[in-house]
Amino acid sequence: MTAPQGFEAAGVAAGLKSTGKADVAVVVNRGPLTVGAALFTSNRAKANPILWSQQVIADGTVEAIVLNSGGANCFTGSFGFQTTHQTAERAAELLGVGAGDVLVCSTGLIGTGDEVFRAKVLAGTEDAIAHLSATGGGDAARAIMTTDSVAKESVHQGDGWTIGAMAKGAGMLAPGLATMLVVITTDAVLTAADADAHLRAATRVSFDRLDSDGCMSTNDQVTLMVSGASGVTPDAEAFRAALTAVCTDLAVQLQADAEGASHDIDIQVVGAATEEDAVAVGRSVARNNLFKVAIFGNDPNWGRVLAAIGTTSASFDPYEVDVSFNGVRLCSAGAPDRPREEVDLTPRSTSVLIDLKAGTASATIYTNDLTHDYVHENSAYSS
Amino acid sequence: MTAPQGFEAAGVAAGLKSTGKADVAVVVNRGPLTVGAALFTSNRAKANPILWSQQVIADGTVEAIVLNSGGANCFTGSFGFQTTHQTAERAAELLGVGAGDVLVCSTGLIGTGDEVFRAKVLAGTEDAIAHLSATGGGDAARAIMTTDSVAKESVHQGDGWTIGAMAKGAGMLAPGLATMLVVITTDAVLTAADADAHLRAATRVSFDRLDSDGCMSTNDQVTLMVSGASGVTPDAEAFRAALTAVCTDLAVQLQADAEGASHDIDIQVVGAATEEDAVAVGRSVARNNLFKVAIFGNDPNWGRVLAAIGTTSASFDPYEVDVSFNGVRLCSAGAPDRPREEVDLTPRSTSVLIDLKAGTASATIYTNDLTHDYVHENSAYSS
Repeated sequence: MTAPQGFEAAGVAAGLKSTGKADVAVVVNRGPLTVGAALFTSNRAKANPILWSQQVIADGTVEAIVLNSGGANCFTGSFGFQTTHQTAERAAELLGVGAGDVLVCSTGLIGTGDEVFRAKVLAGTEDAIAHLSATGGGDAARAIMTTDSVAKESVHQGDGWTIGAMAKGAGMLAPGLATMLVVITTDAVLTAADADAHLRAATRVSFDRLDSDGCMSTNDQVTLMVSGASGVTPDAEAFRAALTAVCTDLAVQLQADAEGASHDIDIQVVGAATEEDAVAVGRSVARNNLFKVAIFGNDPNWGRVLAAIGTTSASFDPYEVDVSFNGVRLCSAGAPDRPREEVDLTPRSTSVLIDLKAGTASATIYTNDLTHDYVHENSAYSS
Repeated sequence: MTAPQGFEAAGVAAGLKSTGKADVAVVVNRGPLTVGAALFTSNRAKANPILWSQQVIADGTVEAIVLNSGGANCFTGSFGFQTTHQTAERAAELLGVGAGDVLVCSTGLIGTGDEVFRAKVLAGTEDAIAHLSATGGGDAARAIMTTDSVAKESVHQGDGWTIGAMAKGAGMLAPGLATMLVVITTDAVLTAADADAHLRAATRVSFDRLDSDGCMSTNDQVTLMVSGASGVTPDAEAFRAALTAVCTDLAVQLQADAEGASHDIDIQVVGAATEEDAVAVGRSVARNNLFKVAIFGNDPNWGRVLAAIGTTSASFDPYEVDVSFNGVRLCSAGAPDRPREEVDLTPRSTSVLIDLKAGTASATIYTNDLTHDYVHENSAYSS
């Protein structure tokens, strides 16, 4: 994330995590441009940092972003909103910028945001700003981890410009963004309108196609910060493709780190009348617990796939649909095809292909199986 | 189910279940009325017996119903539809009625419906009809069990008339009916139009409020058979209330027997602007895996409740909502209230109360937690 020119970052331990690991990160844009764009959870139950950041992003200017793990500051009342506000003010003061240009993100347990939380976040913000460096991207990436088993970063080298990024997320990955914090930086020269359009386009086919457990978080935010320090105005198509590649790379890293999963499942829907239909069909399968549990049991249960897609209003005839698992067509036109014994579901990487026979549109949804470890991790860990 | 006058039933073992247990049931209406009403899965992927039964019920006349476990006869091609058709014809021939007045239901693995299946179902139908008796209700109830741990029956004694019922279902319990076969009998005197109206009204607030794992089956059917043998025309309101009580009793039995569940959860939504809003809010919580797993872990995670209801479009302000677990209000107006330690989630019976503060409508959704046993049973058992 500090690979592009013009950015400094840091990650420090402020005592929010009981493990003593890093839990506050700051990323600062040193310019010359201070363009920003951001997308937020579509959940109506929005955390205080989301409510704040939605105001900050309105003018397309972002100087810095402060992120903390170890507490979501969501449903913490007006005291919680003041904590977010004070965090932005403290950072702004130390950086010599306006508080209205400082984004704030939080992740952790809903309902966490008392006096102790506030004191630690403010102290951590000060500490992180004191440790800002042009090589601090990795530290920042580690500081936003919650149940993540690995830090997630991605870099793309363009034609004279660079994109860097970090992400956190290991569960509650659902549409309209996941429990996911993402910060993307670039030294390309972009206007605020371009940054916003590129970020929306890239997110639509990457993060918004990730549906790990169907649950949508209160704190999700994807942010793009533009320094313009390379001095290069990129080809719009090339930049959008690169940004999409970075977002897809991070989405796949999030999929691979989903809590307790034993299979990464790509649900590819083809032959759809529209892309919306393809997404709806793929998502209905991705969210079907009986399907997800069957994959955990290495059972290529195509009946559960058909039962799932039958709940959608997409255009197709259920008795025309083909379903393949890992390249073996098990169901063709509403009847069994190849024997299910031909499918080997022992590899982690799993592919389900659904041909709706209703058109030429397609989409891929990324999901995971539902496992004992998922149940264990999410019943033992309050989040 | 044979408690009301005018009905005979039987349950026999036809070899469809590998365990050798009973797997074919027949219920016959000896009249004088042969009124019937039925509701079917709203899944577009409908099994052959559903496609057949939808035609049978059109004229409101039902002489008999044949049900089998051990195979869903769904996505089994035209051969499978012919099997259903032949089943009705065989029963009709032996009973001396028209095949167009014989309903057929199947439950079990999707894709099962080959020559062996057909031969066993036809032989089982003959055998069951040979064993029909006015005390065969219990045998029939046992013959439709799949992963059910107990047979489910209910009886209501009205003012000169009786309602009897059996149900099977232990998973895939979702709206628009669950993987659920239900047969209800009554000796009250009802017209076909009344029977249909009463059944829809009763189902709407019972089976349609049960959402165990969000998955909707291809084979669900709820059938009401009316013999009129009591000669008594019931008070419409009293009959509807009694039918609703029977359906709710069965729904609660289904909830209590949901695969692998360790908590029965009643999600009571009050203060809603409309009943539809209350149902949508309750269902969003019932389907949230993180919520369901938290309950399994005895964690009264009110944050996950708010995150779930935030995904709906119901009328409410997320920062006005109250959430209580087992009578303890943990969240009030968007901030923590009582400490979560005050909630004891060790009992199986769990109550979540959500006050939307947006009106006077209410609804209760019945669901279960998501457990290790659910994952185990549904990954090991192909259904």
